Amino acid sequence: MPDPTPEPGLFGVDNLPYGLFGAAGESGGPDGPDGPGGRRIGVRFGDRVLDVAAAARAFRSPHAGLLAAPSLHPLLAAGRPVWRAVRAELRDWLGSPAHRARVEPLLLPLDAVELHLPFEVADYVDFYASEHHATNVGRIFRPDGAALTPNWKHLPIGYHGRAGTVVVSGTPVVRPCGQGRPSVGTDAPAFGPTRRLDIEAEVGFVVGTPSPMGRAVPQTAFRDHVFGVCLLNDWSARDIQAWEYVPLGPFLGKSFATSVSPWITPLDALDAARVAPPERDRPLLPYLDDGGLEPGGLDLRLTVRLNGHPVSEPPFATMYWTAAQQLAHMTVNGASLRTGDLFASGTVSGPEPGQRGSLLELTWGGRDPLALPDGGARTFLEDGDEVTISAWAPGPTAGSRIGLGEVTGRVAPASAG
Amino acid sequence: MPDPTPEPGLFGVDNLPYGLFGAAGESGGPDGPDGPGGRRIGVRFGDRVLDVAAAARAFRSPHAGLLAAPSLHPLLAAGRPVWRAVRAELRDWLGSPAHRARVEPLLLPLDAVELHLPFEVADYVDFYASEHHATNVGRIFRPDGAALTPNWKHLPIGYHGRAGTVVVSGTPVVRPCGQGRPSVGTDAPAFGPTRRLDIEAEVGFVVGTPSPMGRAVPQTAFRDHVFGVCLLNDWSARDIQAWEYVPLGPFLGKSFATSVSPWITPLDALDAARVAPPERDRPLLPYLDDGGLEPGGLDLRLTVRLNGHPVSEPPFATMYWTAAQQLAHMTVNGASLRTGDLFASGTVSGPEPGQRGSLLELTWGGRDPLALPDGGARTFLEDGDEVTISAWAPGPTAGSRIGLGEVTGRVAPASAG
Repeated sequence: MPDPTPEPGLFGVDNLPYGLFGAAGESGGPDGPDGPGGRRIGVRFGDRVLDVAAAARAFRSPHAGLLAAPSLHPLLAAGRPVWRAVRAELRDWLGSPAHRARVEPLLLPLDAVELHLPFEVADYVDFYASEHHATNVGRIFRPDGAALTPNWKHLPIGYHGRAGTVVVSGTPVVRPCGQGRPSVGTDAPAFGPTRRLDIEAEVGFVVGTPSPMGRAVPQTAFRDHVFGVCLLNDWSARDIQAWEYVPLGPFLGKSFATSVSPWITPLDALDAARVAPPERDRPLLPYLDDGGLEPGGLDLRLTVRLNGHPVSEPPFATMYWTAAQQLAHMTVNGASLRTGDLFASGTVSGPEPGQRGSLLELTWGGRDPLALPDGGARTFLEDGDEVTISAWAPGPTAGSRIGLGEVTGRVAPASAG
Repeated sequence: MPDPTPEPGLFGVDNLPYGLFGAAGESGGPDGPDGPGGRRIGVRFGDRVLDVAAAARAFRSPHAGLLAAPSLHPLLAAGRPVWRAVRAELRDWLGSPAHRARVEPLLLPLDAVELHLPFEVADYVDFYASEHHATNVGRIFRPDGAALTPNWKHLPIGYHGRAGTVVVSGTPVVRPCGQGRPSVGTDAPAFGPTRRLDIEAEVGFVVGTPSPMGRAVPQTAFRDHVFGVCLLNDWSARDIQAWEYVPLGPFLGKSFATSVSPWITPLDALDAARVAPPERDRPLLPYLDDGGLEPGGLDLRLTVRLNGHPVSEPPFATMYWTAAQQLAHMTVNGASLRTGDLFASGTVSGPEPGQRGSLLELTWGGRDPLALPDGGARTFLEDGDEVTISAWAPGPTAGSRIGLGEVTGRVAPASAG
């Protein structure tokens, strides 16, 4: 009988994030022509991936049909009671010594598989929920105005982004071309590859259970609708954004690519990470008031690495608006939810300079370059640069940790057209 | 042999718009639980609908497989040569007296079918392409600033909207709730059902052929990618919009519902409607310059009716930015296109007061109520009001017309929560 290596705490039985995998080399890369038929649901366990469909067959799971799909959507749509039942099964299959012999052959090394976009993004919404980030950006972009707009403390500001360009970690990010502000004294906008390519370190929330049009989803129903979290890099071209965004908001400065981590950590794995959000200094309307509700913040510790070098450690616990408030706001006008909707936190920035989640903030609009250990320096990203965002959260036992994996991407040169 | 009524010009063989239909009463309404299995591709011919799958079988079409799908997407994705070949077949089936006996039983009366959302919306982008509309809105919303922002004449301003709440004509529109600006002298935002529910009369463009990430789609490739047009009502809650939209653009003021007409008119039916857009008074960057290209404007004549009474006749030919420019702009940063992407023109407003495509403009922000023939008056919409946008375009023969059908919706009262 095989004797599996004890699995490390970051991806042990208290975590069990879901993804979608195929055999490595089955496609020509993350954007390759691999048909969905070759895709299977996987759960990360240590440095291996459990073939969930095979396990469900082997253990005669009542959910074997759902888990054999070439997509996470049937499971996402099945709702919280099924999410919990499947999680209990997974913990049993992977955690019981009695099952080792049966489960061991179903665990594949991570480097033998290719990880795909874990779900098809229905609508993608991006919020702006860090007071530190919004204040920094306000000071940099609108130096003559108030840092925060008058609405900021009353509602979680958000906008829709492009769902079709959400890609899985590892997908190269082609430097976008676009218009920038005319030079002083001219009326002709600049055009070319962006000179201010940036990142935004964020946390994404994945909707499982849909809701009908015309019905608001209250904060108390958050866990019935939201399945789990991923890490997200909202790549941004600051020169394009600065010229285009008044009056209708970000568009081409963001829509060229948004990267997400391949693993969706279920909310059920993050119970020990729940924390109270920062104190609110304005009274909130009833649909946003979270006084008396279970704590809606999450103590996720992010790290941003540029070419392997840590440049920031954004603390998600400092976010002013919680994901439950964002969900309640997004639907208070009766907008429906669909399985696969993705909403992101907005850039995570803490109060300290070393906790800022974008280069815009870390270099204060490009004024203060970041020194890199190889002797180089960066204001914004250069071709070939690789940015990786990783995170962990406290686990259920003292000192334990839940890993959220990482989202990474390398900048490719602008294409010829 | 049956002798069919000669079909009227608005939906004759020069038009042939596509939709998706099922038997009336198959579902509980536009939002009912009808499975996609009951849906079939239809083409409107006069006041009847051709069952396209049945016709393709009857005439042994080489495209019968594609046309038997319960969705328009396989046809949309097949590309322009297939679009043209299928259109030629349809013209033959419906136009040749020799085929009358065979085609007649495959034509169903419009009132015997239920029309569904004609395609699944991938990403929804809304532009802001009428100079008259942008100028009016600028004057009303930002009376102290310039009517047009400095970027307006240099790029077609757009933003992403919510794809999941695009609904087919006839779907009731529930009055949304949300926050509005605090009253003067207070810091507490208003909350409740919107008091300024409005419409925006627009034209939507439906993408068929996808494009890869990292590649711009030039104006010259417009007809290879865009399949056809629909009518669109971008319902808007002006009080919610005014409070939320700085700095990241419209969100809940728009995301509760967007209605589209059930018929997608192929671009091939609109050749006679092509017109030059208004003269550009600033030089354009090469990717937007349309000097020397075939005319990119479309002479579509819209009519807006409120409770049956015509209140505006917006002329689409006056739009400053063309759909080909919008497509080129949307992809110049390398954003990919997906089959089912929908991009809309923005509100169509002409230079005359009777040509404005929103109540915001028609009543100048609510200052000048519209008189209705029943003795009533409106600034913004009341519960029970019905708004219908219809349009036609010049056809290929002198005096002939191509109908674009209509998009209609009735306001339902705000729901309890």
